[in-house]
Amino acid sequence: MNDTTAALSSAADTKQLNRQIRLAARPRGLPVASDWALTTEAVHPPGAGGVLVQTLALSLDPAMRGWMNEGKSYIPPVGLGEVMRAGGIGRVVASSHPGFSVGDTVSGGLGVQEFARLEAGEIKASGLVKIDLRLGSITQWLNVLGMPGMTGYFGLMDVGQPRAGETLVVSGAAGAVGQTVGQLAKLKGCRVVGIAGGPAKCEWVVQELGFDACIDYKAPAPQGVARWDAVREGLKQHCPQGVDIYFDNVGGDILDTVLTRINRKARIIICGAISQYNNTTPVKGPANYLSLLVNRARMEGIVVFDYVDRFDSAVSEMAGYLKDGRMKSREDVVPGGVEAFPDALGRLFTGENFGKLVLEVARP
Amino acid sequence: MNDTTAALSSAADTKQLNRQIRLAARPRGLPVASDWALTTEAVHPPGAGGVLVQTLALSLDPAMRGWMNEGKSYIPPVGLGEVMRAGGIGRVVASSHPGFSVGDTVSGGLGVQEFARLEAGEIKASGLVKIDLRLGSITQWLNVLGMPGMTGYFGLMDVGQPRAGETLVVSGAAGAVGQTVGQLAKLKGCRVVGIAGGPAKCEWVVQELGFDACIDYKAPAPQGVARWDAVREGLKQHCPQGVDIYFDNVGGDILDTVLTRINRKARIIICGAISQYNNTTPVKGPANYLSLLVNRARMEGIVVFDYVDRFDSAVSEMAGYLKDGRMKSREDVVPGGVEAFPDALGRLFTGENFGKLVLEVARP
Repeated sequence: MNDTTAALSSAADTKQLNRQIRLAARPRGLPVASDWALTTEAVHPPGAGGVLVQTLALSLDPAMRGWMNEGKSYIPPVGLGEVMRAGGIGRVVASSHPGFSVGDTVSGGLGVQEFARLEAGEIKASGLVKIDLRLGSITQWLNVLGMPGMTGYFGLMDVGQPRAGETLVVSGAAGAVGQTVGQLAKLKGCRVVGIAGGPAKCEWVVQELGFDACIDYKAPAPQGVARWDAVREGLKQHCPQGVDIYFDNVGGDILDTVLTRINRKARIIICGAISQYNNTTPVKGPANYLSLLVNRARMEGIVVFDYVDRFDSAVSEMAGYLKDGRMKSREDVVPGGVEAFPDALGRLFTGENFGKLVLEVARP
Repeated sequence: MNDTTAALSSAADTKQLNRQIRLAARPRGLPVASDWALTTEAVHPPGAGGVLVQTLALSLDPAMRGWMNEGKSYIPPVGLGEVMRAGGIGRVVASSHPGFSVGDTVSGGLGVQEFARLEAGEIKASGLVKIDLRLGSITQWLNVLGMPGMTGYFGLMDVGQPRAGETLVVSGAAGAVGQTVGQLAKLKGCRVVGIAGGPAKCEWVVQELGFDACIDYKAPAPQGVARWDAVREGLKQHCPQGVDIYFDNVGGDILDTVLTRINRKARIIICGAISQYNNTTPVKGPANYLSLLVNRARMEGIVVFDYVDRFDSAVSEMAGYLKDGRMKSREDVVPGGVEAFPDALGRLFTGENFGKLVLEVARP
């Protein structure tokens, strides 16, 4: 990591180098070192109406795995040779845009690089906005107040439509989206049961975040019991009234297992499928999807970008919860700058991260 | 079939015999002859407040296959040794219920038997209602004006929420539900593309029902092209604006294929999965379900029983379309009485039926 803010306090200084992580190859299965290339280029000042942002921290997200694949998705794939797409927090170090001043803290699509030069025509597409650090820390702005938080907020509120007294289950419960969803659902009066990998995460969401229960899907199943049967037993035990809302971050066998326990008119929010992202075989479809028919239930996808116009009010609400302690956040901050990106990303898929995974690129 | 109306014009006549088809064994895969038993018992007059109905025609539905399985579903399974559940049209031949008179034509859960004796406490659960043959014929009351029509109506209108100019795809297009859905969607201003098996069905839904196109999923694919790729090409060709609503009656590979062509905010109505009902292997889940995420789309199940309170107004609307010729109906009437039930049911799963499959039990 580099403390270069001072060195780049004026756009005139172009001696600074920008290290970048580029996509070198499309991975098959888990990304490996050779899928990435570290490049270095000189930092140039932006043209008229542009800004230069020094990256402070980057958000590492499961969705990144999808962006590395060829083919149509909700956004185009990252091109081979391009700087890897990433959202992050940075500081404006040069600006000729009327909306941004040197020293502003900003959030947006900065990419895995130390400096992001955004020309006038690129600022809107990058989603660059000023953020207020009085509402939350830099890492919280990548977590509860950022994309994961907004994903959880709108997925739960708009698609899940929680009512007090209902039971919500969320997978990836200790992850960035999961922690927001579970805590928010508690605030809305739901019974909340998490699914997470390992006793530490399960204990944390119950003890610290106030979930009613958490099922450890990695726990050794009793003799003669398949792992998913054990998860199903956990759901029976902890959701005695069935499942009204399932917020799915993982897909695969966990989705299939929860489908066997849903209530009539249940809502299943499809937010992600991290268990399937590195498949080298076809995605496992939910074999129990006919439970949707039997239960007149709904399965619906959510993409956070659709809600950008409503972020401000959601951020206000969430910042209020953070401030008065009704919502907690946990970030897993990896140091080491952009070079550490490939290894850090891998931790998402092994479940090694504990809380929102953030890559620190420079000290603020 | 038996013309016994005259013989049973009074409840005092109890010499009449009632032939019944009972579930003798739970089938594995396609039902076979030994899964059924033909029984004969004397017809007894109903007790106080009950009615005796002579069955005229029975509805044969894919859902029947599900009712034969053990386990929780949207209604309990048919018990071993019980008369097979079936909806049908009949004539009241004895009544001490104030709502029904001898000679009334009625619709309800009669079972696969020649006479249904419904005691006072059973009438509500059987859904027994008088029907008006001026609105449609007996077979139309089992089709467009009956359960399939109501399923199509509420699935399309409540879950699908069609808007003029949208594209709807419906599988099982020539079947009972499919023909209603497609014609109704045309009336609501949609582009309508069917999927059906064989050129005769495809030609009929286009030429007679006015669908914009129909894809024959059984058509031999060109050399080197997999069948589902051919279906996908058909969707590309006939749905140039993508698919906004998919009404799924079949599941399996067709569902998976359509999922690759849906638009943003698409609605997928899960009405059935006839391709999977006789599986002896696990149900094939939709491997492309993450298209729901990418497209912020929704997949939702529908069960017609939820809409009973709204049948009257839907029947009025549909009867109006039948009367003015804007909606056509086709029924495939199998003669032979209750003995013919096992063979007739099998035709549903091979796709041999053409239009709503009806078993004629007695001439009206």
